[in-house]
Amino acid sequence: MKYDGIVTPMITPFKKNGEIDLEATDLLIERIKGYGSSGLFPLGSTGLFSFLQKEERDRFLRYVIDNAHGLPVLAGVGSSSTQEAIFYGKKALDYGASALVLMPTYYITPGQDEIKDHYSRFFESVSGDTFVYNIPQLTQAWIQPETAKWLVSQHSQIVGLKESSGDMRYFSKLMDLKEGDFSIFQGQDDLLIPSLSLGASGGVCGVTNFSDAVVRAYRAYREGSHEKAMEIQLKEINPIIHALQKATFPSLYYDMFYRINEIEGGFRSPMVRPSRDLSELAERTISHVSPEKI
Amino acid sequence: MKYDGIVTPMITPFKKNGEIDLEATDLLIERIKGYGSSGLFPLGSTGLFSFLQKEERDRFLRYVIDNAHGLPVLAGVGSSSTQEAIFYGKKALDYGASALVLMPTYYITPGQDEIKDHYSRFFESVSGDTFVYNIPQLTQAWIQPETAKWLVSQHSQIVGLKESSGDMRYFSKLMDLKEGDFSIFQGQDDLLIPSLSLGASGGVCGVTNFSDAVVRAYRAYREGSHEKAMEIQLKEINPIIHALQKATFPSLYYDMFYRINEIEGGFRSPMVRPSRDLSELAERTISHVSPEKI
Amino acid sequence: MKYDGIVTPMITPFKKNGEIDLEATDLLIERIKGYGSSGLFPLGSTGLFSFLQKEERDRFLRYVIDNAHGLPVLAGVGSSSTQEAIFYGKKALDYGASALVLMPTYYITPGQDEIKDHYSRFFESVSGDTFVYNIPQLTQAWIQPETAKWLVSQHSQIVGLKESSGDMRYFSKLMDLKEGDFSIFQGQDDLLIPSLSLGASGGVCGVTNFSDAVVRAYRAYREGSHEKAMEIQLKEINPIIHALQKATFPSLYYDMFYRINEIEGGFRSPMVRPSRDLSELAERTISHVSPEKI
Amino acid sequence: MKYDGIVTPMITPFKKNGEIDLEATDLLIERIKGYGSSGLFPLGSTGLFSFLQKEERDRFLRYVIDNAHGLPVLAGVGSSSTQEAIFYGKKALDYGASALVLMPTYYITPGQDEIKDHYSRFFESVSGDTFVYNIPQLTQAWIQPETAKWLVSQHSQIVGLKESSGDMRYFSKLMDLKEGDFSIFQGQDDLLIPSLSLGASGGVCGVTNFSDAVVRAYRAYREGSHEKAMEIQLKEINPIIHALQKATFPSLYYDMFYRINEIEGGFRSPMVRPSRDLSELAERTISHVSPEKI
Repeated sequence: MKYDGIVTPMITPFKKNGEIDLEATDLLIERIKGYGSSGLFPLGSTGLFSFLQKEERDRFLRYVIDNAHGLPVLAGVGSSSTQEAIFYGKKALDYGASALVLMPTYYITPGQDEIKDHYSRFFESVSGDTFVYNIPQLTQAWIQPETAKWLVSQHSQIVGLKESSGDMRYFSKLMDLKEGDFSIFQGQDDLLIPSLSLGASGGVCGVTNFSDAVVRAYRAYREGSHEKAMEIQLKEINPIIHALQKATFPSLYYDMFYRINEIEGGFRSPMVRPSRDLSELAERTISHVSPEKI
Repeated sequence: MKYDGIVTPMITPFKKNGEIDLEATDLLIERIKGYGSSGLFPLGSTGLFSFLQKEERDRFLRYVIDNAHGLPVLAGVGSSSTQEAIFYGKKALDYGASALVLMPTYYITPGQDEIKDHYSRFFESVSGDTFVYNIPQLTQAWIQPETAKWLVSQHSQIVGLKESSGDMRYFSKLMDLKEGDFSIFQGQDDLLIPSLSLGASGGVCGVTNFSDAVVRAYRAYREGSHEKAMEIQLKEINPIIHALQKATFPSLYYDMFYRINEIEGGFRSPMVRPSRDLSELAERTISHVSPEKI
Repeated sequence: MKYDGIVTPMITPFKKNGEIDLEATDLLIERIKGYGSSGLFPLGSTGLFSFLQKEERDRFLRYVIDNAHGLPVLAGVGSSSTQEAIFYGKKALDYGASALVLMPTYYITPGQDEIKDHYSRFFESVSGDTFVYNIPQLTQAWIQPETAKWLVSQHSQIVGLKESSGDMRYFSKLMDLKEGDFSIFQGQDDLLIPSLSLGASGGVCGVTNFSDAVVRAYRAYREGSHEKAMEIQLKEINPIIHALQKATFPSLYYDMFYRINEIEGGFRSPMVRPSRDLSELAERTISHVSPEKI
Repeated sequence: MKYDGIVTPMITPFKKNGEIDLEATDLLIERIKGYGSSGLFPLGSTGLFSFLQKEERDRFLRYVIDNAHGLPVLAGVGSSSTQEAIFYGKKALDYGASALVLMPTYYITPGQDEIKDHYSRFFESVSGDTFVYNIPQLTQAWIQPETAKWLVSQHSQIVGLKESSGDMRYFSKLMDLKEGDFSIFQGQDDLLIPSLSLGASGGVCGVTNFSDAVVRAYRAYREGSHEKAMEIQLKEINPIIHALQKATFPSLYYDMFYRINEIEGGFRSPMVRPSRDLSELAERTISHVSPEKI
């Protein structure tokens, strides 16, 4: 398979004043590589792409691609507008992204016809490996399994799916698309092992911004140590995820990266710093479940 | 473990006139046993307990217990009223049920305090192995993981959970309760293998009313043939489930049992016979995915 | 119009031990009449019919009909089972109920075909003025406007609708059915005036178990004092409703009746007594917004 | 009151090739004025602001302000990013907008703290009359009544609310904020009269892009002809709205404007032209309910 393993949906590190912190980005990539991730996914939801200005997205993506330490870069090209997504898609390929990750347009809720139109127009203008990204809790657009199948049948650029709905029943319907080199990634860390048990290629897992637990679970599973993989899923990953879910997504992902790396990071408005209580609870959870890792 | 494997949430076979058909019940139990189920669960949601009169529930339960062909009987004792649930619980134990399956009260949506009160009052009056049954899509009551933990800590009669929400993220939170002899069953056929990958004890799977696919998947998984188990899950069980979901639940479960066993069965009002189209689609799906089984 | 004005969805008063309190019921009816309600609706959701045993429903309904102080009695005949609803419907007419109030079956979620079947079977066996009762937040069954129209066109026994979804957009769709003597009641107190502005016949309003605010608002509106009606809606009724919504429905309706009438009432399990804080908040709200009324 | 009556959430007319059509915009404004609208609201959801490029928003807004035929212009300044909203807010005031309409950020779902942060940062940089815009079905952000009250208490620039949730129970909670010059607009055409009955200042009603029915209903209500207002609401506005809702929002608003004015308009991708069936149904509905108006 061309794409598998654990990919990191990167945060976009900020300075205290809310500007992008490229120095911290460097450290972040280094840590992600150290954890064993097999790819970088900048400018996704965890990366808060929707908070960034056009120029910032541009600059950040180039920086990540130029400093990827050999990791493939799957560039998020999401937008509320098809035209803008095309703009980002072209740029990302120019800069050398390995693949693109494209969600449906959001805000104005698209029907299935609008979803098809969006992808079709995109592929009229952009040629490169592309993942279809389903994240209905943010886009409000469910890509129906039939629509996903249609898209894949029409567009050979589609090399895989990133499915982040959190709904395993839906996820399992998409597994019909899994054949040959086609990749299907689970986008929710707490569903990694169940997804692998259905044949998923891997996961796009936010916890890898500050922990290697997900990679260890993945490797254990691939090596046939299903018990161990299950143990890491239930005793390490899930408690971390549950702690992270207590503040507005994805503020604690940022906060944990800053804390663990002792960076005085910031938050891009309107995202506010999580409360001290939730921050400490999350850190305690991480150091409790994976003590040797901090 | 005291309870594991695949349990069948039995339909309640009806005659053409809508009355309970005990003869067909006999055949049903025989078939279920033949498929390899490890237990019978009469008077659950699939059994349409909420459509039955008190006397009918009574008579049907006794009949099933008396004709169980050696299978343990987990008796559904659900009601919109705590008092009535207690009444049913006592009766079921008198008749020799192996265990009880108790959901929260429904219609009036209970909060967590009402859920606690319901179970606590029940256990003041009824003593027997009991499963907590979470099925929020019908009861509208989510038993919060903290509530489930509290209930288990307070009541030693609780021997397990039947979790039918269809939400794997929630399901995985309950897996913390899994220790020693405590059983956790997945109530959705299409989530069996993912649930086993997280350590579930087994499944309460409606498809076993007319097919052995679920039991074969379960056995393959337990024997370490994860690929084969996954294959049966994705290529047999899930297509069947998706076909069954096209009509109002659970009418096609009844229809498939009648069709496959060539019984002229009926439907209890207000449940109506599924359309011929959906009926034929479901049957075609079953014979297509598991051809040798019909 | 045969049915209009404000009808009271009566609580079922309980003694401290959880049994029905007929003495308190007497007082309740007297108070309701005093508030100016134009009808009694026992055994609805507020009346917790789903917690009562068959015999209790029977006895309570007879008592209310026999002690109605001249008020018409609209008897709730809801059940999870069509057969049982028919049983209750016949009884209620025998006892002298003015009309019946019938919801779709619940627990097993009916489709539109099942809803049609339920009402049709009911009217095959029961002949009497009947209200169709839409309360999807408890039954999970939305009676589609087309279904409502079909039912009304088929069954002349249907004399009106009680619509309690809380969704004014849906409510307004049903207003097409309003012609001649046909009655449409709003079941949410906080939507009374908006509903009257669309031509509703009146309201089925729980606050009339312990307050006359709703009746005053209704009368003001009917007398053309729209400003005054709006004032009572926004400054009296709505703050009360918002306070009542803070505990599990409908516990504070009971608690307020007990408090205001200085009765040591009880709660039928699994309903638990609301916390002292919420109880005091609700009472303070009532005495604050309608000071002269207590 | 400074702002009241019926305001038009303008479509952004497109040419067949998907570019903005300024000529058609001219006609649109002329028609809107003719219908009796008391204000223009460009770049709202109906205006598909989220599909437009920065330069297009700029150019279109200037054009509308410069060609408003004396109507006040309430400029939509929504964005998924606080920074960008500030940018748009400053520009709009520079161009001479009468007021701004600001929604919470979307895509990344904000909590109440993020909503507060967003508005507070905005008002640090932008000074002008501003409406808070609640449209949770698109933003996924519910501005809690307490948050709305806090915002209004903190920021004197807030002169009103546009509430488009469609939830009258929520709407009625916001009516507490109505005092003095503060304006509260209903954003759903089919809830206009119920909202006026609770004291709303007026409506922001999309039907005014091609029909005067809403203005007639509003005027009838204000003149005390409540029956007539109700009649127009139920017999004209609502059937139109129900027909428009059959295609993906807001495609039929565009289509109806094009049809009624015999313009060969277009659709900005990914929005697709509604099917001929739905288009004809909508037109037939309009000409049927308001025959003299076409």
